[in-house]
Amino acid sequence: MGEAENGGRDTDSVGLVTPRRIRIERPLTLDCGRSLPQHELIVETYGTLNAARSNAVLVCHALSGDHHAAGYNSEHDRKPGWWDSCIGPGKPIDTRRFYVVSLNNLGGCKGSTGPNTVNPATGKPYGPDFPLLTVRDWVRSQAMLADALGIDCWAAVIGGSLGGMQVMQWAIDLPERLRHALIIASAPKLSAQNIAFNEIARQAILSDPNFHGGRFYDHDVLPKHGLKLARMLGHITYLSDEAMRAKFGRMQRVNQFSFNFDVEFEVESYLRYQGQSFVDRFDANTYLLMTKALDYFDPAREFGDKLSDAFARASARFLVVAFTSDWRFSPQRSREIVQALIRAGRDVSYALIESNLGHDDFLMPIPQYHKVLRNYLDRVAREAGA
Amino acid sequence: MGEAENGGRDTDSVGLVTPRRIRIERPLTLDCGRSLPQHELIVETYGTLNAARSNAVLVCHALSGDHHAAGYNSEHDRKPGWWDSCIGPGKPIDTRRFYVVSLNNLGGCKGSTGPNTVNPATGKPYGPDFPLLTVRDWVRSQAMLADALGIDCWAAVIGGSLGGMQVMQWAIDLPERLRHALIIASAPKLSAQNIAFNEIARQAILSDPNFHGGRFYDHDVLPKHGLKLARMLGHITYLSDEAMRAKFGRMQRVNQFSFNFDVEFEVESYLRYQGQSFVDRFDANTYLLMTKALDYFDPAREFGDKLSDAFARASARFLVVAFTSDWRFSPQRSREIVQALIRAGRDVSYALIESNLGHDDFLMPIPQYHKVLRNYLDRVAREAGA
Repeated sequence: MGEAENGGRDTDSVGLVTPRRIRIERPLTLDCGRSLPQHELIVETYGTLNAARSNAVLVCHALSGDHHAAGYNSEHDRKPGWWDSCIGPGKPIDTRRFYVVSLNNLGGCKGSTGPNTVNPATGKPYGPDFPLLTVRDWVRSQAMLADALGIDCWAAVIGGSLGGMQVMQWAIDLPERLRHALIIASAPKLSAQNIAFNEIARQAILSDPNFHGGRFYDHDVLPKHGLKLARMLGHITYLSDEAMRAKFGRMQRVNQFSFNFDVEFEVESYLRYQGQSFVDRFDANTYLLMTKALDYFDPAREFGDKLSDAFARASARFLVVAFTSDWRFSPQRSREIVQALIRAGRDVSYALIESNLGHDDFLMPIPQYHKVLRNYLDRVAREAGA
Repeated sequence: MGEAENGGRDTDSVGLVTPRRIRIERPLTLDCGRSLPQHELIVETYGTLNAARSNAVLVCHALSGDHHAAGYNSEHDRKPGWWDSCIGPGKPIDTRRFYVVSLNNLGGCKGSTGPNTVNPATGKPYGPDFPLLTVRDWVRSQAMLADALGIDCWAAVIGGSLGGMQVMQWAIDLPERLRHALIIASAPKLSAQNIAFNEIARQAILSDPNFHGGRFYDHDVLPKHGLKLARMLGHITYLSDEAMRAKFGRMQRVNQFSFNFDVEFEVESYLRYQGQSFVDRFDANTYLLMTKALDYFDPAREFGDKLSDAFARASARFLVVAFTSDWRFSPQRSREIVQALIRAGRDVSYALIESNLGHDDFLMPIPQYHKVLRNYLDRVAREAGA
């Protein structure tokens, strides 16, 4: 990647991007039984929608992601969007061929309607009055977004982790509205251990005295300790034990033990930093909501626990990608998806990527991984006439 | 196991046991540089010391363990000691042959000198003024206990998890004082991931407003939320993902989602119960101390990171036991111990036990496991003339 023309950024960057606010004026009925009369979604798009409107790709974000997936929001940004390694001119999701749509999900905290936005009924932030959502609710909201953008059918819906769950739900609920489903580092439902991690994260937030039952906005405080603990815990599951060993070893910052609770090992320093920096950029109510959406995801549930029966409704073609070092959503979980798709008679490709980092590898530009995406998406683009 | 004579208890139970308080009047110099002029240890013993004083076995406890390893402290106890499955007449640690000593370690919270006992200098509980300890400090204290009991050389020192670390340190530091070292479900040092879990547990406790810098005793409160989170987190690492699946599945208590933060999955209920019940029986300062002792344990450290050089000082014979489903201290970690012992020219037996539950399996009466212990300890007893 070389430095270049577009504002001193790399030539394979989408460059400067301005998020858009899209207002959905139609009521959205949610799985919890409540409904939102209208809602707003913050969106970034990269590339150009072709005349046939056949080259649109939806990118679904994971737990702490948002709409800013690629490029820069200002000349002063030091870091590009969260999946910039994968989205851009000449990159696997090639913006010279695809019109890429990336949103902050409903219930998020980066501008889309969510717990930290103003409830029109009260003039105050929703806080705990914002409904808990399911992956299916997100798909409904994203379908309204597609309508607003004039996209009848996505060339592909793509997502990693919780994003991959949205891809599965799209394929099951709205089969006619996507041609390809790319499910990366995901699982057909959480394991009891996954739920256990989420539950501890939630208890950390809920028991923080500054949480104030979710109304911390009114008290001008943040439940920093709780959210920090939740994020630290998340990070353990994003990295493999081996990656942690390679990254930190047991190296001490100083050569002697301090015999107090200051940082003594590098991994402590890393976790504290990750936790602290998260507190300043993420909303505790959104974090709770995201973990519950993860826990609730179980598309087989209404099909007598038969995932293949759920996938029998789908008509998209599938790519499923897993990473050898991912213990949060291990390759075994991806194989469950693949096996159910095969039983359902669906067209599915599966790639297991040799990796070291763990769950976070789905964000990394691993050559074999990007080659798989590139090859698959090349076919998608050709089909779309893009 | 049949009901029987000894107070309606099983015939293979050690029956009613009364803990003893042993006062060590000699100063104990600690790795942190401080020293304790005297300290007290709470001890239970099972079986009888033979005339040759050759049949004594020391049982070292793990993070949340204590002196009450076997039998019952009163007729009304509903549960026996934490390793009752293994210690008793006719059990693998056979109290008809061995004199078994089990203590609450220094720094513990079940009666031995520790953060929740009175600091003679102030007349108040030590709290945060109690020194942080190392596994080596515990071995020093346990050696003083052996002196007090008139035991020059243990027939065996036995422990699982953090207890196994004490066994290793005994073998390295005081080779002439034990004939056999039984190291179960342990590791030669923590991995970065292990330390990460401990660090989050500590931060949960330290950031609880009721912790009051460790002086919560003075405020008549407990840092319940923090200690509960720490314990919940520990439980994730004690169970395998598979065991959690088998034990809880994703079974809900009710059939419909509640869309709030009440318990919706069985694993949430389990963790909350485990966390809550721990808060009422364990001290937060001791929990912190135990996790730091785990982090600090690294016997190879002063031997240029060569574990075999550390073990070259040992003269005991070793049994190392690991469990296939243990991901906290995986079999790989036990193999590291075994390989270092072999390089050091030590006599070592290794058993890998097929298991399902995870780290907690070291407390379970798995037939293959108990057979290995029984056969090994039979040899130990015969050598001891017991």
